Amino acid sequence: MPQLSTRISTLNAGGSDGWGVFYRARKMIAQGIPVTELTIGEHDIRTEHSILEAMAASAKGGHTGYAMVPGIQPLREAIAQRVTDRTGVPTTPDNVLITPGGQSALFSAHIAALSPGDTALYIDPYYATYPGTLRAASGTPVAIPTRSKDAFLPQKSDITAAAKAHSAKSLLINSPNNPTGTVYPDQTLQDIAQACIENDLWLISDEVYDTQIWEGHHLSPRALPDMADRTLVVGSMSKSHAMTGSRVGWILGPERAISCLIDLATTTTYGVPGYIQDAALFALTQGPDFEEKIAAPFRRRRALSLEILEKQTTVKAIPSSGAMYLMLDIRATGLSGEAFANALLDAHHIAVMPGESFGQSAAGHIRLALTVDDDRLSAALTTLCSFAKGLTDDT
Amino acid sequence: MPQLSTRISTLNAGGSDGWGVFYRARKMIAQGIPVTELTIGEHDIRTEHSILEAMAASAKGGHTGYAMVPGIQPLREAIAQRVTDRTGVPTTPDNVLITPGGQSALFSAHIAALSPGDTALYIDPYYATYPGTLRAASGTPVAIPTRSKDAFLPQKSDITAAAKAHSAKSLLINSPNNPTGTVYPDQTLQDIAQACIENDLWLISDEVYDTQIWEGHHLSPRALPDMADRTLVVGSMSKSHAMTGSRVGWILGPERAISCLIDLATTTTYGVPGYIQDAALFALTQGPDFEEKIAAPFRRRRALSLEILEKQTTVKAIPSSGAMYLMLDIRATGLSGEAFANALLDAHHIAVMPGESFGQSAAGHIRLALTVDDDRLSAALTTLCSFAKGLTDDT
Repeated sequence: MPQLSTRISTLNAGGSDGWGVFYRARKMIAQGIPVTELTIGEHDIRTEHSILEAMAASAKGGHTGYAMVPGIQPLREAIAQRVTDRTGVPTTPDNVLITPGGQSALFSAHIAALSPGDTALYIDPYYATYPGTLRAASGTPVAIPTRSKDAFLPQKSDITAAAKAHSAKSLLINSPNNPTGTVYPDQTLQDIAQACIENDLWLISDEVYDTQIWEGHHLSPRALPDMADRTLVVGSMSKSHAMTGSRVGWILGPERAISCLIDLATTTTYGVPGYIQDAALFALTQGPDFEEKIAAPFRRRRALSLEILEKQTTVKAIPSSGAMYLMLDIRATGLSGEAFANALLDAHHIAVMPGESFGQSAAGHIRLALTVDDDRLSAALTTLCSFAKGLTDDT
Repeated sequence: MPQLSTRISTLNAGGSDGWGVFYRARKMIAQGIPVTELTIGEHDIRTEHSILEAMAASAKGGHTGYAMVPGIQPLREAIAQRVTDRTGVPTTPDNVLITPGGQSALFSAHIAALSPGDTALYIDPYYATYPGTLRAASGTPVAIPTRSKDAFLPQKSDITAAAKAHSAKSLLINSPNNPTGTVYPDQTLQDIAQACIENDLWLISDEVYDTQIWEGHHLSPRALPDMADRTLVVGSMSKSHAMTGSRVGWILGPERAISCLIDLATTTTYGVPGYIQDAALFALTQGPDFEEKIAAPFRRRRALSLEILEKQTTVKAIPSSGAMYLMLDIRATGLSGEAFANALLDAHHIAVMPGESFGQSAAGHIRLALTVDDDRLSAALTTLCSFAKGLTDDT
């Protein structure tokens, strides 16, 4: 075999990824052991039937040939209108490229921002694919650590120091945040914007959880002064409309960047199925009540989780105001996130993600996805807390 | 706006692309002018209803969450079995990655083969997205010219010379060929394999037209001695099953390469909708009769076109034995392909692709897609031939 390129052989570089717990849990389930899975960000509902009916009608109606590569015009228009309404930033279809999912949007945005070897900054803890995505785009990923005591919010001085030290070209942020559940306050976003302007960085803003806000509000940094021209926003139907498997998302950005990104789409994906775009258009026109229906279970489960957690001393919740996750500080047990998660899985058949899966800043933490029904979640969380307390009683 | 990366701003570099004729034709159609479009490789039928029924049943049955990134196991198995049966090369699911279309497979294969800046060879004339795809993968595209008199078949000496001059890492071929309709003979493929082995090149073999063979047979170069370990095959459901818009394809390759390509898929696309994979699986199990039904119109139209063309002296067909295209040599008219195509569109509202759209080797030629019904095709071709003859009579 000829050599594989270094970039493709090293996508997963960077030490233990903590996904061992996830795979062990899946193996136990396959063996018939009932495991409560609080691992991945997959809704416990399926895509709404009416959306699938719209898709089937479009396909059977003949929308099965090549769709326009930038996306069908009505969907680009609907997203432009939605973004204008929600953020106040005048947005036209020429600011929108439809992509086969948010992951493709993330990757493409970095191809636009980086020349091979350029440094791309991202915030630790992070969504698991981030460093690999930056490497796939031939960038050099540099993590900006955050701290549990700051609710994992990035600090301007850290961003500026990293940008200057590495002549970085881009910064990737994610609010509402996976894995922490944090929604960045306005001040944090203003600081980030300032750091981007001062260091001439592209800001790549992953906003796929923007309909999952439990407290406060979501501010898209593209709406901040002078930021529309240097921000590429990643959006998706996955979380907001429970359409994870349909792989439909988008990038918002300056017209000239989107024009280049369309050329990239022509050569890397050649567009998104027309009938899926029709389904997405149908879903988007269902309005805020539909979106709240999809978000409601997570809103409810976060509230009931916090109620259980507020009585705890060993396990502490990171202040969370969005997204379908809760991050718990379990450092009082003296265990790493990975050791805790493995021990919990063995003792009680409850699977959670070690914080270490999401970067070193989240060591000694675990992440819960709020993706099982309320009763099962309550029971699992109560067991988890007793288990943690038991560990400290032992010592 | 911060600078865009050079690679994304120059994807379309390289002079006139000849797509002006296509866009002019589309504009005329929008104005209500009836144009016979023989431009792009889109079937004139829609995806079969039974395939769409299978898709709708899968989606409504709940296959709407994240699918496994490498592809669902039954589809990987079906493709592995199909490839084993058709080529004789033992192929397992671990040799198969499902991709969102052949274009994504082409791009991903080059990410695997190339480090940024490495030279990627390809054959001129070529499918229009090739050079942009190689640039998107941060490669340096180098075209290997072919000649009309050789039916545009690549010559080993040309490949070897280019490989050595540029220390190339890969060679991209496409048989059956778009735009020429040529099916590479065994000897040509053996020469190509030899050149790849001698120069340690990855062979990236785009075989998306492998069910459209009108004469002779299709040999997959992966089946040649010592080639399975250095060949990445690009496949797709688009042409074989009239599923262009569904964006489902695959890469075949050595297990280690596929394993790395799965990491790439995780960070660039995150898989293909499960219900589309179920539809593809259904389509693949319909067997050879179904595939022949999809291929038959092109087989028939090629035959009737050659019958019209064999009486011609001004316009000469390049010997074609596969794919849904015919390449015509119109150099006797004294016009470039682009000038001829523009004049034909103006005079007779018939749209064809200038050879120049597919590279400089095809200058003075035009490409016809056999994608309108037989009567309309016959009439258009007869008009085209008279028009060409008229041009020579004038001079």
